[in-house]
Amino acid sequence: MNNNKHTIYGINNCITYLSNKNIFSLDAVYVSKGSIAFKNMDLNNLLIKNKVSYLDSSLFAKKFPYKHSQGIIIEFTGVIEKNIDEILNEKENCCFIIVDQINDPQNLGQMLRTSECAGIDGIILPRHKSVHLTNTVLQVSQGAFLFVNICIENNLVNTIKLLQSNGFWIIGLENSIEAKKWFEMDYKGKIGIVIGSEGRGIRKLVKESCDFLTTIPMKGKINSLNVSAALSAILFERNRQLLDS
Amino acid sequence: MNNNKHTIYGINNCITYLSNKNIFSLDAVYVSKGSIAFKNMDLNNLLIKNKVSYLDSSLFAKKFPYKHSQGIIIEFTGVIEKNIDEILNEKENCCFIIVDQINDPQNLGQMLRTSECAGIDGIILPRHKSVHLTNTVLQVSQGAFLFVNICIENNLVNTIKLLQSNGFWIIGLENSIEAKKWFEMDYKGKIGIVIGSEGRGIRKLVKESCDFLTTIPMKGKINSLNVSAALSAILFERNRQLLDS
Repeated sequence: MNNNKHTIYGINNCITYLSNKNIFSLDAVYVSKGSIAFKNMDLNNLLIKNKVSYLDSSLFAKKFPYKHSQGIIIEFTGVIEKNIDEILNEKENCCFIIVDQINDPQNLGQMLRTSECAGIDGIILPRHKSVHLTNTVLQVSQGAFLFVNICIENNLVNTIKLLQSNGFWIIGLENSIEAKKWFEMDYKGKIGIVIGSEGRGIRKLVKESCDFLTTIPMKGKINSLNVSAALSAILFERNRQLLDS
Repeated sequence: MNNNKHTIYGINNCITYLSNKNIFSLDAVYVSKGSIAFKNMDLNNLLIKNKVSYLDSSLFAKKFPYKHSQGIIIEFTGVIEKNIDEILNEKENCCFIIVDQINDPQNLGQMLRTSECAGIDGIILPRHKSVHLTNTVLQVSQGAFLFVNICIENNLVNTIKLLQSNGFWIIGLENSIEAKKWFEMDYKGKIGIVIGSEGRGIRKLVKESCDFLTTIPMKGKINSLNVSAALSAILFERNRQLLDS
């Protein structure tokens, strides 16, 4: 398998790709005849100068058994990941998200999407025991993968040290009554926010590398905020602080 | 079909149900032999006094083709919906979410989950052109459906008028540069927050019924924050205001 070959599907995702297709090399476009993609004017305008294979719906469904394809598939080649050296920058307010071993592609896709909308500078994932950039992640991200820097690092503790040596403060989000509340943290300047996995939270050594820990107190009974919902709460609190200052 | 018959699955969801099973009438529990549910100690402790059907994994998979069952299915009977009269209350700070015609069960399930964690008093859905409490919604909610009040109303404009006549201020979330930023709103007291559908936003008459409109400015290029992520940003801004005051 070539890790640089990717498949995306769904109208919004494909529109975003086609509007920015100079980023990666387009290999093929497949459209199912009569589908909602087939009838979508915005999509068709973007497809005009591309070679498109129009397939009968039964053949399309057999060839591409994706539940959310909406009748369009795009295959492209390119390296989505970047190196950490490439994404470090000298912006006054810079924020990286460090995602410690999450497994659910829906969650990672949503986190990419939310991070892009919130203007985050990059997402860092560990190489091992983590979901990476699967087709589902790309689809759920709704094209965010084109604009958010994504790094996959061997050792998150080392990555955190590298960020700290570059002037970043690292804030870990955990479920703890001892940690400061999420809005009591200062998100201005250069920061990294560490989010742990769905069930287990942040691993011990990664947590010990954080400069601060913060928590979002729950007010209900199930006490289980989804990681991407928690990320949204924190990132827009950061944006509030940046806009309000 | 009996609309009061429900099926839930997944370990967390079923643990939450079994810990609160006096709320609804339990009909049946099915566990797949050898599955992760079969081996889960917390779950097994809750199952001790219940009649459980243990099925061979092949039969279980055939009978219950749910991708995220984790090897446990619970069937129960009960009316999850409440009437609006039952859920109006005299709390000093009370918040209802009014969801105008969303279609994606993942989004509704996540919104229930986030609302429960944020301590919201109820979610109101329109009867027509909206996803309701499907099995997927219940599963994604991770048990939140047991604790969040849910109403299904024929006419959201009338519902908004009813809330307004009971002292509620209604805030609509829309994508507009003219609306006030989300953190400039006052979420204290009795409020309703209206969220529109994934692609189309809030319908015209519903929007015109709102007392205020607010917006969450995007800082990226895709300009498409997921509705449940937007809800999370607003609800935890509300919690910040309540905790910080």
